[in-house]
Amino acid sequence: MTNSPKNTPANTSIRPTSTTASGSLSATGDKTPVDLIVSAPWIIPIVPRNAVYQDCSLVIHKGDIIDLLPEAEALRKYHTAEHTILEATVLMPGLVNAHGHAAMSLLRGYADDFPLQQWLNDYIWPAESQWVNGDFVADGTQLAVAEMISSGTTCYADMYFYPDQIAQVVRHSGIRAQIAFPVLEFPTAWARDASDYIHKGLQLYDDCKDDALIRIAFGPHAPYTVNDNTLERIATLSSELEAPVQIHLHETAQEVADALADKGSRPIARLNQIGLLSPATQCVHMTQITNEDIQLLADTDAQVIHCPQSNLKLASGLCPVQKLLDADVNVALGTDGAASNNSLDLFKELNMAALLAKGLGKATDLPAEQALYMATMGGAKALGMADRIGSLEAGKAADLIAINLADVSTTPLYNLHSQLVYTNVGHQVTHAWVNGVALLKDRELQTIDSVAVTARAKQWGKKISGD
Amino acid sequence: MTNSPKNTPANTSIRPTSTTASGSLSATGDKTPVDLIVSAPWIIPIVPRNAVYQDCSLVIHKGDIIDLLPEAEALRKYHTAEHTILEATVLMPGLVNAHGHAAMSLLRGYADDFPLQQWLNDYIWPAESQWVNGDFVADGTQLAVAEMISSGTTCYADMYFYPDQIAQVVRHSGIRAQIAFPVLEFPTAWARDASDYIHKGLQLYDDCKDDALIRIAFGPHAPYTVNDNTLERIATLSSELEAPVQIHLHETAQEVADALADKGSRPIARLNQIGLLSPATQCVHMTQITNEDIQLLADTDAQVIHCPQSNLKLASGLCPVQKLLDADVNVALGTDGAASNNSLDLFKELNMAALLAKGLGKATDLPAEQALYMATMGGAKALGMADRIGSLEAGKAADLIAINLADVSTTPLYNLHSQLVYTNVGHQVTHAWVNGVALLKDRELQTIDSVAVTARAKQWGKKISGD
Repeated sequence: MTNSPKNTPANTSIRPTSTTASGSLSATGDKTPVDLIVSAPWIIPIVPRNAVYQDCSLVIHKGDIIDLLPEAEALRKYHTAEHTILEATVLMPGLVNAHGHAAMSLLRGYADDFPLQQWLNDYIWPAESQWVNGDFVADGTQLAVAEMISSGTTCYADMYFYPDQIAQVVRHSGIRAQIAFPVLEFPTAWARDASDYIHKGLQLYDDCKDDALIRIAFGPHAPYTVNDNTLERIATLSSELEAPVQIHLHETAQEVADALADKGSRPIARLNQIGLLSPATQCVHMTQITNEDIQLLADTDAQVIHCPQSNLKLASGLCPVQKLLDADVNVALGTDGAASNNSLDLFKELNMAALLAKGLGKATDLPAEQALYMATMGGAKALGMADRIGSLEAGKAADLIAINLADVSTTPLYNLHSQLVYTNVGHQVTHAWVNGVALLKDRELQTIDSVAVTARAKQWGKKISGD
Repeated sequence: MTNSPKNTPANTSIRPTSTTASGSLSATGDKTPVDLIVSAPWIIPIVPRNAVYQDCSLVIHKGDIIDLLPEAEALRKYHTAEHTILEATVLMPGLVNAHGHAAMSLLRGYADDFPLQQWLNDYIWPAESQWVNGDFVADGTQLAVAEMISSGTTCYADMYFYPDQIAQVVRHSGIRAQIAFPVLEFPTAWARDASDYIHKGLQLYDDCKDDALIRIAFGPHAPYTVNDNTLERIATLSSELEAPVQIHLHETAQEVADALADKGSRPIARLNQIGLLSPATQCVHMTQITNEDIQLLADTDAQVIHCPQSNLKLASGLCPVQKLLDADVNVALGTDGAASNNSLDLFKELNMAALLAKGLGKATDLPAEQALYMATMGGAKALGMADRIGSLEAGKAADLIAINLADVSTTPLYNLHSQLVYTNVGHQVTHAWVNGVALLKDRELQTIDSVAVTARAKQWGKKISGD
């Protein structure tokens, strides 16, 4: 549907079937009282695929979407204290940024135009060992979360030191997150050795058990920084706890070549031998893939997280996204950290993913609608959250964003999916809700003091650059 | 300088040498009266390369930059009625968008996810033949110029039908432009045959002779749509008039293969045989290049205009930018039309160019500073305007932009060049001046009524999609 110029927003419309998910509401007069109704000219629910609803409303109660129906019907059926009416706006599920190191936003632009290993060894790791502590992580994470909410991300995956600090920032900000605690064999300021990383991570797992918006994952850094014993232990523990595992995998050709030389097998094959490939395994980067690797991903239902901008910038290689999709492998999108991107705007990332897939393949590869799916449902599936987020459907959490399209750069409007993917709309996100709570209203952050966050980030910048 | 994390904005600073270019000013008391002074914490002049001036002022009089010096000295030396002081802002030359079809902004999102020939034959050409007239071109060009000014472009190259309408919009908007009148062998609404296109184009050349901000160029569409006789005539005329020639060249592998089959030579070799390769020749796209092609470009000092997003989106191929730069070929950047991009934000384009060059080559390819050079001086050279624009130097025209960096997404700040290239700053452009005239102030367009332009574009959208 998105591909035909004859299909304007008007005739892509599908009338939603009103299906009230909650039966526990008490009626006030004829109308059912609800917390919030949001109305807009267009809604892209992501599921069903390709649908665009016109002049409809999302009905939100106790954090969930309970109905999605034409506005006139919504106002007849429901009573609400808060009705947000948005003009020239499209509502869609909040974006899912499935890989990043949020606190590294404090190192944005610290070292550019270097290949991965030099960038890590000569710049990033020395800087981290000098500067990273709990305060750095708290301030850097808050800066990153502010940027992500402002550009339409309502759920993100983090992997960094001091994950306890990350959890505090996430709680306070109201964003949804998967926090992967890092596991390495060598010491950092946060932990001594693999056992210590895991010990601290399990403590965090316990501490966050009751947080509805936080999921703790295991974050073994990469096959070349974590040994077999540790990976085996992670396989066992993550399976017992039903916790996901996120790992940098096949990021560069060098990584794969070194593994073949050292261990005699490709890193993904080694993970499989250890029993660490499953639907709960999130393989980040995957720029070097053979058909056998793809088969392994498909057979184990493992997840792939594509970070095109970071891969390009560090000249790491290019993930063959369309090939993975053709093999029914789920692919999500990630920005990676701001030190290697340098933007956390996932709309920019999905634009890059869509353009790059075509450049490497055919002009019909990764069409606009599929790119949006990847940035929402793809991310939700990758993080094991597809039952709660990724689409606007009754019964799911009210994690959604509003994008205003009344700008010269987004006019005229023939095709909503195309407009969201091929123009540059991150800064046109006006509202964001997570679990029905507004985190962004008319472009103003509601839970984060952006002036204070920016001021602290500037102080870190001055300190780190020695000004 | 840009590559070392030790180099913060503070220590990349080079103190400008105050060189007053105009000797014709009369002093008021001790101070020389001038039209405008603009002060900002940072100025990137582009020339000298890598320089960043801190706490300096640009002094502007009669449309030209007449001085560039520390703010305190500027205020001692000059008297001005208007002193614009910008906080947390970097000033730099306005960007040069060296290739596009502005009016096609009315077809933004009309047909996506198709390869070039299908996109042209089945969608764009039929739509153009049905809808393009003088009003379409006027309204579409104004929409595009509004978008370009708002995202930091102060000079652009256009190639489209009804170039007389384009010239009127350009004049009214105050932007600087090269307008290439199209030449084709087949009839369109604007002209009958090659002779008629050229006849009308020469008329326009005469009409615009006194426009300081408009330069008329020959726009033979492509080697496969223009025959040898016409190309020979263009070679002769353009040389006599000292007018540039812009042509789509080596855009796809198919184009080159067809030419080899039909004519027995590569398109660029054919142009060279005809005598159409010179420093005034602007070769747009060049995604298919052999070492011989590069040698030909270098030997003739012809210009290359790289349009990475359009090339990716239409799966046309990838221009090997770093190889061209290594061979001392000048490379400029273009967005192409909004129907194949779909954004006219040149900051987004230069970001793509920088990332893509690394992805195809090494992480050290096309570093941030060089990407900014390409988008300013590279463009100025390509359009034959390097004596007037492309850098902030005394004696050049006051074509400049201001970008506010006080945002969570551009904090902290270690390296200005990197921040401008690797984050997403098009919407943070606050001011734009051309020839010293403000076209954008505090993000408000000064010469274009954006509400009226958007309303007209919406009407076109409705008409074209048959709503």
